[in-house]
Amino acid sequence: MRYKSVMKLKKIAVMQKLLKANDAIADEIRQELQDKNVFFVNLMSSPGSGKTTLVEETVRRLGKRIKVIEGDIQTTLDAERLQKLGIQAFQINTGPFGGDCHLESAWVRAAIDELGTGGMDYLFVENIGNLVCPAEFDVGAHMNVLLLSVTEGEDKPLKYPLAFQVSQLCLITKTDFLPLKNFSLEKLRENIKKVNPACAVIDVSAHEGTGMDRWVEVLKNRQGM
Amino acid sequence: MRYKSVMKLKKIAVMQKLLKANDAIADEIRQELQDKNVFFVNLMSSPGSGKTTLVEETVRRLGKRIKVIEGDIQTTLDAERLQKLGIQAFQINTGPFGGDCHLESAWVRAAIDELGTGGMDYLFVENIGNLVCPAEFDVGAHMNVLLLSVTEGEDKPLKYPLAFQVSQLCLITKTDFLPLKNFSLEKLRENIKKVNPACAVIDVSAHEGTGMDRWVEVLKNRQGM
Repeated sequence: MRYKSVMKLKKIAVMQKLLKANDAIADEIRQELQDKNVFFVNLMSSPGSGKTTLVEETVRRLGKRIKVIEGDIQTTLDAERLQKLGIQAFQINTGPFGGDCHLESAWVRAAIDELGTGGMDYLFVENIGNLVCPAEFDVGAHMNVLLLSVTEGEDKPLKYPLAFQVSQLCLITKTDFLPLKNFSLEKLRENIKKVNPACAVIDVSAHEGTGMDRWVEVLKNRQGM
Repeated sequence: MRYKSVMKLKKIAVMQKLLKANDAIADEIRQELQDKNVFFVNLMSSPGSGKTTLVEETVRRLGKRIKVIEGDIQTTLDAERLQKLGIQAFQINTGPFGGDCHLESAWVRAAIDELGTGGMDYLFVENIGNLVCPAEFDVGAHMNVLLLSVTEGEDKPLKYPLAFQVSQLCLITKTDFLPLKNFSLEKLRENIKKVNPACAVIDVSAHEGTGMDRWVEVLKNRQGM
């Protein structure tokens, strides 16, 4: 057990250096995109909460001056879905680098260099589907948006507080499934407020269109830029 | 970028040492529980795929000679749910240790020491809700079981292959939601087989009871022990 404790300390020290380097690059990205009038949004959620569907529906409403950086461990499925809409999407696969469970700002930097900053008013990052690790790594966004689907349960903000605490907006997705057994939307909203009273909340169903106008309005307001 | 690469290599070296220490403890746990005739199952999934509900329904069918180690970043909500059923549940919160996104064998070891190995035929670990990181850490189980709910989408095995590759059984949960728009159960099964042809698959709905008999049969067979 003593061996483990020493390793844990070493791991923390390495992580702190990594995070510091990560934050410096993130700040540069944020400033550069602000200078170029590009509003940068980081979408985080569990696997399958509807990030790609949300982006698809957003493009339909907000137009094609949107570029997307897709984070996945494996596959280019999501980038292909978005390219079909006629927008530029760049896929980062972390699989070859140990299956990393989050995106880091250096990879986002490299993806922006590939995509170019011209021809866009909005940049979205679709982070790795994971409610834990992406919250620890600033990718340089002007706004962090957390998606939580109603099928995931009302207790998730209490169990995974950091992801909610670093987000300015929470989208409660898949509301077309309501009402659900053992689930209270009111309780979920209360739990979000418990861990982050400042977090705005919008209920959305990308399939039915519910809440999409309010979401597009948030994007147009560009808060945090 | 060069700085980052060096840090990345250091991180990998530290991780390799951590994993080696982790695996040694996991092997000890596996052997000890085998000697005591306790079948140890590690449940992994995204947040909200139904791990706790599955354990509740399993206790109702298999009896109370089950103990559970609950992994969560924060809260003791899940352990409290299980204690209501009259079984022993031990909660590990990784929040105080940097919000770790997975359980390690040393923590499972400590939890087993707290729970004691008497009075049980089965030990369950409910890992942190995360489809990425828990797959990298052997906790000493005789069987890894992956839960994926139908609402998460059919593409998940392709995007998060490691979790499926280290599992002997995949439970497709929440089948009471079927049929679903843009979802094919057949396609999901194909995708699981693509990344792990040896993985057994059972469709379950803990609420409706579908597939629960087959799941209990698997537990009784104690494959991997």
